[in-house]
Amino acid sequence: MSNGTSTAITVLGLSGSLRQKSFNSALLRAAIALVPPGMTIAKGSFAEFPIYNADVQAKGFPEPVQTLAKQIRDADAVLIASPEYNYSIPGGLKNAIDWISRVDNQPFNGKLIAIMGASPGRIGTARMQYHLRQSFVFLNSIVLNRPEVMVGNAAEMFDDQGNLTDEATRKIVGELLKALARVVADQHLLKGATR
Amino acid sequence: MSNGTSTAITVLGLSGSLRQKSFNSALLRAAIALVPPGMTIAKGSFAEFPIYNADVQAKGFPEPVQTLAKQIRDADAVLIASPEYNYSIPGGLKNAIDWISRVDNQPFNGKLIAIMGASPGRIGTARMQYHLRQSFVFLNSIVLNRPEVMVGNAAEMFDDQGNLTDEATRKIVGELLKALARVVADQHLLKGATR
Amino acid sequence: MSNGTSTAITVLGLSGSLRQKSFNSALLRAAIALVPPGMTIAKGSFAEFPIYNADVQAKGFPEPVQTLAKQIRDADAVLIASPEYNYSIPGGLKNAIDWISRVDNQPFNGKLIAIMGASPGRIGTARMQYHLRQSFVFLNSIVLNRPEVMVGNAAEMFDDQGNLTDEATRKIVGELLKALARVVADQHLLKGATR
Amino acid sequence: MSNGTSTAITVLGLSGSLRQKSFNSALLRAAIALVPPGMTIAKGSFAEFPIYNADVQAKGFPEPVQTLAKQIRDADAVLIASPEYNYSIPGGLKNAIDWISRVDNQPFNGKLIAIMGASPGRIGTARMQYHLRQSFVFLNSIVLNRPEVMVGNAAEMFDDQGNLTDEATRKIVGELLKALARVVADQHLLKGATR
Repeated sequence: MSNGTSTAITVLGLSGSLRQKSFNSALLRAAIALVPPGMTIAKGSFAEFPIYNADVQAKGFPEPVQTLAKQIRDADAVLIASPEYNYSIPGGLKNAIDWISRVDNQPFNGKLIAIMGASPGRIGTARMQYHLRQSFVFLNSIVLNRPEVMVGNAAEMFDDQGNLTDEATRKIVGELLKALARVVADQHLLKGATR
Repeated sequence: MSNGTSTAITVLGLSGSLRQKSFNSALLRAAIALVPPGMTIAKGSFAEFPIYNADVQAKGFPEPVQTLAKQIRDADAVLIASPEYNYSIPGGLKNAIDWISRVDNQPFNGKLIAIMGASPGRIGTARMQYHLRQSFVFLNSIVLNRPEVMVGNAAEMFDDQGNLTDEATRKIVGELLKALARVVADQHLLKGATR
Repeated sequence: MSNGTSTAITVLGLSGSLRQKSFNSALLRAAIALVPPGMTIAKGSFAEFPIYNADVQAKGFPEPVQTLAKQIRDADAVLIASPEYNYSIPGGLKNAIDWISRVDNQPFNGKLIAIMGASPGRIGTARMQYHLRQSFVFLNSIVLNRPEVMVGNAAEMFDDQGNLTDEATRKIVGELLKALARVVADQHLLKGATR
Repeated sequence: MSNGTSTAITVLGLSGSLRQKSFNSALLRAAIALVPPGMTIAKGSFAEFPIYNADVQAKGFPEPVQTLAKQIRDADAVLIASPEYNYSIPGGLKNAIDWISRVDNQPFNGKLIAIMGASPGRIGTARMQYHLRQSFVFLNSIVLNRPEVMVGNAAEMFDDQGNLTDEATRKIVGELLKALARVVADQHLLKGATR
C-alpha cells in the first residue's frame, strides 16, 4: 500500500485573471512559495483559449485546451486563485472550465479542488466562490470546504512587487495547502488499498 | 408626457451560444418573429471579444466591445437567450458581460433585462439564470421576474431548421415579450412625467 | 394623477432574528429613526408562527400568519433586516416567507422589498441576501438593487444599548430608505396614470 | 484495518416536509426500502423544534434538538429528502439545521450528506439543493455530488399509498444509497488506517 505522507503531491495552479499585476496571480505565487514539503504547484493558463464554440470543438480541441486538460488530469489537485467579476466567476476562467469540461476523460472528474480569491472590496470573492463550487458539483470534483480563502482589501495585503505580506493571509494560504495535502494523502491511501 | 403604449420599443438580443445551430440562437430568432406591435429586436454579438484582460482594456476597449456596449446603451431592453454550461453562465457570455460592465456610462445600469434559456435536459437552464440574475444585481439592471422561460428537452421543441414549433414555448416567449413591453412603457411614462 | 412625492409611504419592517439584543432588530430600529419625510415603518413579527405544515394550513392559516400577511399586503414596501445563518436565510425568516407565500392574494406579489443585514463577521450577510433575492423572484417581488446594506463587524457598529453609532452605516441605511421612497413614488405615479 | 465493505452503515433520514402525505417523506420511505446490504436508515424529525432564538438556546437546547443532534452525530451519514419552497430550502428544515449547527461538537462537521428532493413541477427541487449545499460548506459536511436525485412531476411518480412506483426514480435512489455506502466505506477505511 502506498504511504500517503511520503508521496509527492502535484498541484496545477490557475489564476482567474490575465492582468500582469493581478492580485490573484500574486496570491497563486505566494501559495507556490508556501507549499508544504512534498508538494509542487505548476502554473497553467487559459490566456490563449478561444471563446467556447461547439463548432470549433467539432474540428478538434485547440492546442492550449489540450495542454491545460492534460495538466489538470496529471495533477493530484487544482488550486484556483480568482477575482470576482460582476458577483460571479470571471468569464475567462469560466470559459476555460467550459472547454476543459468537454475533453474526453473529463479532467475535473473526481479531481480535488482548492479555491482562493482576492478582491479590492470587503467581501473577498465570496460570491464567485459559491458559483464556482456549483460548477464543480456538475463536474464531480471534490472541493475543499475549509479554509475558505477570501482575501478582502487586497491592495493592503500585497507590497508593490506583488508579494503577499499580510501574515494572517499567509497563514490561511498555508493551511489551505496543508488541508489539500491531507486529502490527497487520503486519496492515495484509498487508491492503494486492496478491497 | 410620452404615451407609453405608442412608443417604439427597441430590444437588443443576445445569444449565449456561438454554435451555428444553437438552440438558444434559434430561440432568439423565434422571439424576433413573435414581437408584439411596436417592438423590434436587433441581434448583438460577442463572438469577436477577446478574453477579458485589464491590461488590454488599458490600451482601449476593443472595437467589438464598443459596438455591443453602444447597442445595449441605445436599446430599451436586452433579451438574453443562453444555454447553461457546467451549472452556470457560459464563459463566453459572462466574458461579454465582464467587458461591457467596464465601459464608461455602464451600459447595463438601469437597463431592463429579460432572460430565456434552452437546454437538452429537463432543468432548462435554471441554474444559469439565477447566476445571471446575481450579476445583474451588481450591474443595477432590472430583470423581469416573470415569465421565466426555461426550455427543457430543447431537441423536441425545434424542427430541423431551428424553428420553434412547440406551442406552449411559443406562447411563453410571446408573454415574456409582452411583459417586457409593459415595463418599457412604464419606464417611458416615468421618464416623461414631470415631478 | 397622484403626486408621488407627497403621498405617505408605509413600510413593514421585519427582523430575521428573534434574539432580544439582535443586531438586526437594532438595525431595523435605526432605520425607523432614520426614515425620510412621509415614510413610516411598522414592525411585523413571525415569532409565533408554527413550522410550516400543509396539513395545518388546510385547517386555516394561524392567526399570526394572517396578521403578518395583512400587514405586508397593506404596506407599500417591506424592509427586511436579517442575519445570515449557515450561509443562507435564517430558518425562522424563511418559514415566515413560506407561510405568507401561501396566503390568498399572495402578499409579496409585486411588493417592493429592501434588504439589510448585519453579522459579526466580515461578509455581512451577503450569502443570505442572494438566497433571499432568489425567493423573491418566485414571489414576483421587486427587490431594490442598491444600496446593498451589508453590515460586517456588527459588534463595533452599535453601542451597548443597540444604537447604530457607525456613521457610514447610518448613511447607507438612510440612502436605502430614500431609494425605497423613490420607487414607491414611481409606483404610485404609475398606478395613478391613465393609460 | 477495518474492512469497509462488511461494516454496518447507519444513516439518519430527514424529510423536509411535515405534511402527512408528503412526497418527500414518501421518497424517504422508498429509500429505506431500497437500502443496500448492511445499511439501515432511521428517521429523525424536527416537527417539535421551536423557531430558532439565541435567547432560548441560552437556557439550554430544547429536548427535540438534542435528540436529533445525537442521532446525526451517531450516524455515518444523513439522507435528506426535501421539497423546495419559494426557490430555496423549506424554512422548517433550515430552522432545524440552524439549531443543530449550534450544538457542541457540531453534528454536521465532517458528516456525509446525500440529498434528494421531489416537487410537483419540472425542476425537481434543484434550486433548494444548491442552497442546501452552500449551508453544508459552512458546516464542513461532505455532500455527495452524484447522483443528483431531483424528482420532478412528483404526482406521477408515486401511487395513492405514497409508494414510489417510477422505475427510473427507484433506480437512481438505489444508486444514491450505493454511492453513500461507498464513501462511508472509504471513511471507515481511512479511520482504521494507521498513518
